[in-house]
Amino acid sequence: MLRERIRHKPLLDRVVSADEAAALIKDGMTIGMSGFTRAGEAKAVPLALAERARKDPLKITLMTGASLGNDLDKTLAEAHVLARRMPFQSDPGLRKAINAGEVMFIDQHLSETVEQLRTNQIPPVDVAVVEAVAITEHGGIVPTTSVGNSASFAILADKVIVEINLSQPVTLEGLHDIYIPTRRPARMPIPVVTPESRVGLPFIPVPPEKIVAIVVSEKHDSSATIQPPDDDTRAIAGNLTDFLLNEVKRGRMGYELQPLQAGIGTIANAVLHGFIDSPFHDLKMYSEVLQDSTFDLFDAGKLGFASGSSITLSSEMYRKVLPRLAEYKHHLILRPQEISNHPEVIRRLGLICINTALEFDIYGNVNSTHVGGTHMMNGIGGSGDFARNGFMSIFVTKSIAKNGAISSVVPMVSHVDHTEHDVDVLVTEVGLADLRGLAPRERAEVIIANCVHPEYRDVLRDYYLRARQRGGHTPHILEEAFSWHLALRDRGTMRPA
Amino acid sequence: MLRERIRHKPLLDRVVSADEAAALIKDGMTIGMSGFTRAGEAKAVPLALAERARKDPLKITLMTGASLGNDLDKTLAEAHVLARRMPFQSDPGLRKAINAGEVMFIDQHLSETVEQLRTNQIPPVDVAVVEAVAITEHGGIVPTTSVGNSASFAILADKVIVEINLSQPVTLEGLHDIYIPTRRPARMPIPVVTPESRVGLPFIPVPPEKIVAIVVSEKHDSSATIQPPDDDTRAIAGNLTDFLLNEVKRGRMGYELQPLQAGIGTIANAVLHGFIDSPFHDLKMYSEVLQDSTFDLFDAGKLGFASGSSITLSSEMYRKVLPRLAEYKHHLILRPQEISNHPEVIRRLGLICINTALEFDIYGNVNSTHVGGTHMMNGIGGSGDFARNGFMSIFVTKSIAKNGAISSVVPMVSHVDHTEHDVDVLVTEVGLADLRGLAPRERAEVIIANCVHPEYRDVLRDYYLRARQRGGHTPHILEEAFSWHLALRDRGTMRPA
Ligand SMILES: CC(C)(COP(=O)(O)OP(=O)(O)OC[C@H]1O[C@@H](n2cnc3c(N)ncnc32)[C@H](O)[C@@H]1OP(=O)(O)O)[C@@H](O)C(=O)NCCC(=O)NCCS
Ligand SMILES: CC(C)(COP(=O)(O)OP(=O)(O)OC[C@H]1O[C@@H](n2cnc3c(N)ncnc32)[C@H](O)[C@@H]1OP(=O)(O)O)[C@@H](O)C(=O)NCCC(=O)NCCS
Repeated sequence: MLRERIRHKPLLDRVVSADEAAALIKDGMTIGMSGFTRAGEAKAVPLALAERARKDPLKITLMTGASLGNDLDKTLAEAHVLARRMPFQSDPGLRKAINAGEVMFIDQHLSETVEQLRTNQIPPVDVAVVEAVAITEHGGIVPTTSVGNSASFAILADKVIVEINLSQPVTLEGLHDIYIPTRRPARMPIPVVTPESRVGLPFIPVPPEKIVAIVVSEKHDSSATIQPPDDDTRAIAGNLTDFLLNEVKRGRMGYELQPLQAGIGTIANAVLHGFIDSPFHDLKMYSEVLQDSTFDLFDAGKLGFASGSSITLSSEMYRKVLPRLAEYKHHLILRPQEISNHPEVIRRLGLICINTALEFDIYGNVNSTHVGGTHMMNGIGGSGDFARNGFMSIFVTKSIAKNGAISSVVPMVSHVDHTEHDVDVLVTEVGLADLRGLAPRERAEVIIANCVHPEYRDVLRDYYLRARQRGGHTPHILEEAFSWHLALRDRGTMRPA
Repeated sequence: MLRERIRHKPLLDRVVSADEAAALIKDGMTIGMSGFTRAGEAKAVPLALAERARKDPLKITLMTGASLGNDLDKTLAEAHVLARRMPFQSDPGLRKAINAGEVMFIDQHLSETVEQLRTNQIPPVDVAVVEAVAITEHGGIVPTTSVGNSASFAILADKVIVEINLSQPVTLEGLHDIYIPTRRPARMPIPVVTPESRVGLPFIPVPPEKIVAIVVSEKHDSSATIQPPDDDTRAIAGNLTDFLLNEVKRGRMGYELQPLQAGIGTIANAVLHGFIDSPFHDLKMYSEVLQDSTFDLFDAGKLGFASGSSITLSSEMYRKVLPRLAEYKHHLILRPQEISNHPEVIRRLGLICINTALEFDIYGNVNSTHVGGTHMMNGIGGSGDFARNGFMSIFVTKSIAKNGAISSVVPMVSHVDHTEHDVDVLVTEVGLADLRGLAPRERAEVIIANCVHPEYRDVLRDYYLRARQRGGHTPHILEEAFSWHLALRDRGTMRPA
């Protein structure tokens, strides 16, 4: 059994316990682990590390692809192992430590981490810990349900620990396409010219000597935490498909649209779901995380191909997909996040990018990360790679949160992740604002008319009209700009007193 | 004489007066004109248009590459010709009309305008007006001192008006490299792999039938308005070269650095000037505007090659450079701004990007465009294309403005053009903050210690420390965040009362 998974014979001798492998990680080290949006993370070694830290405290810098599953970020944070964490997370426990200033979180565009690593602009990875379905005859590492930054971590690290996860099906082999850009300034074009372009190897190439330890595990990936579509998310999806249908009718694109990127979370998943009952067909995805909706679209015959960096599914969908992986595999590629999110490829393919806002303002600036301007939610993730460089940048959100105590449309966002220049279309369940070619004052009119919850519409228009009297390209009343956020803090609601 | 400039014989019949050509422009049209940072703009037709509008009012949407010279934006604004203007401007007269809400200004990333045009996401160009040194035997248009968006305007417009400018030297021919990306999603890689890659034609290819009018002009480009280096800008340059020298010493790059991009204006020009007395050599530029400093670096033997989209010089430098253009030409290329600013090429070449901030905040968010959060200065220009996608993103500014009434480092920027994710290094005359790999709280410590003017340092630290007590990944006191801007407005100074 293990010989099928570890096909480079000399490596069979390197199988050790998780504790022994974790012992290779020393205080102060920088560790690069696999894992992207709860998929394909190393599971045994970080747990052993947290266990050890309870008796023998140590601190590390932890880099991953994106968020980890199996509560690992929480466990590591609570064991006080994390001095620094990058480039993304989405764990309530870790979030708490970050907002308390206990963990230094470096929130990065997901395409950039390994560029900074390979140019020594951030400290090097001492040890890489990568989950794999198998190690090939020549020592190549076959990742599991995500690629993330694993390839560059393994290639750049001094030492590599591999976790062979027996619960990850061997049919995953052949799914991955590992391409690493050459060094700059002598870099050649990335040869990806369609979502289905295969340009690399189906494994991570490392000299087998670098694999210092192999741990066998059996734990499953965590399932996704997204909620099923509801009336509001269905309305958001409906508004967006109507808009895209109109683009088709005006001759701007065909029914196959442009390749789609969709962000993480409940709303983005629900929006993609909306394409099932649309007249679009032969769709393609060039995205980051492939969620349930990707497979529902395959099954509905709507989607021809999907390229991503991870597969993160609900437990129900896992049960459906895993046995049929060999079928789906012909229509799927998992790539390093540097390639799934590469500005070059995003611009070339001309992606329609759909990401989620926490809040946006009357001029179309978007906050995706900071509650109340100060407290980190998850991080910017890949949204900045996509929104800046895509064909069309769409942000979706419900018009209100917390039973209406929060309006997601505010006078001025309390934190900016995406500037008005990067936001073409805004969608809530109320309606859609097409901002292309509009100046700020025009954007404000359309956003207030189309996207704001009726309860907040008049008071937001009142702010805008009073601001406009003061003049300026982007009128504001600076002393009032955050008054809605302050009311929420002080009175528990943004509703006018 | 004119036969040397208009070498496609049938076109000699199309020579008309500027008034006649301007008559082709009708009320409500969208006009695409040449011109990028005061270089190579059409000069006679817009003037004739403004003249005509005084008697016979009309309104147009005016698209250009970037800003126009010869006070044309002012003249057009004052003649009330401009309903809409995109994607950049830098004229005090037009700025006034924009801030008064009279002209709708669409402030765009400079690489994006023609992508939106060719996909019909913004209204099409009815008439293109392009300054040229010559028209080739087959009707190709040879631009003058800028390429900007001229090529795509001419290719996409129904009608083209060419202004042959006899004051622009014929030696400019051969300088340009016109490459237009293929349509998406079936786009191939942009073949630019070094700053000196020539991948296109030395003229804009259009069917000669589309050239409906040719106007002959003789007006010179306006000279640049930048100020010479002063003690502060020299100190900024010194801080930056010390930093880069340290990068070389740490083995992160060689003395030739990575290809350089430098933004518009006095400070960026002065910073590049600082490389003259540095140990760096065999530098290359892959930038937008080539200012005086580019030619000073050539003359100092520091610079091997420069690629840009325009050449904008002081009158003194024009007198030096123009007679020797044939020599410089071997080391220069002018490209469409879509290519000079292309995310694909910026990331591939690995540019060191140096742009100017109006103000930045304690977490490294940058405002490059809005005075007091509301009033447009020039626009974002190409800074967003470069800062997001480069190898290293540096922003420079003096630590104070208006004799110290303004601190350029504030608690929270009043407008965000570049988020903390896009800002690696900040430089003022006081010092330099290297923010790579730092979390917001760490960024604040370094910025306050290194970049703030001594007069403002303690009060800024006080803000940060009080904010930190409230917690959060990015601590702020929302009700105080803009208090410095409000003090400036109400008391004329940000200095504590
Ligand atoms: C923005 C983001 C958090 C939304 O996630 P989602 O699951 O689609 O959205 P939800 O509506 O369920 O909102 C999540 C939470 O934020 C809360 N929320 C929504 N808007 C809010 C606002 N304006 N202020 C405060 N809280 C808000 C919701 O109430 C919900 O809270 P809960 O968890 O206590 O129920 C998520 O998309 C994200 O992290 N984005 C940033 C990264 C990114 O875009 N990546 C894409 C490429 S990777
Ligand atoms: C930001 C920018 C305006 C700075 O220009 P510059 O010539 O280098 O800088 P200066 O120090 O001369 O400042 C310009 C003016 O802004 C004022 N200013 C500077 N900081 C300020 C602040 N924080 N608040 C208000 N005004 C400020 C200066 O006092 C000066 O005013 P004046 O014209 O009345 O003298 C200019 O670089 C720009 O437009 N950048 C945006 C576009 C861009 O980055 N393009 C790069 C690729 S194209």
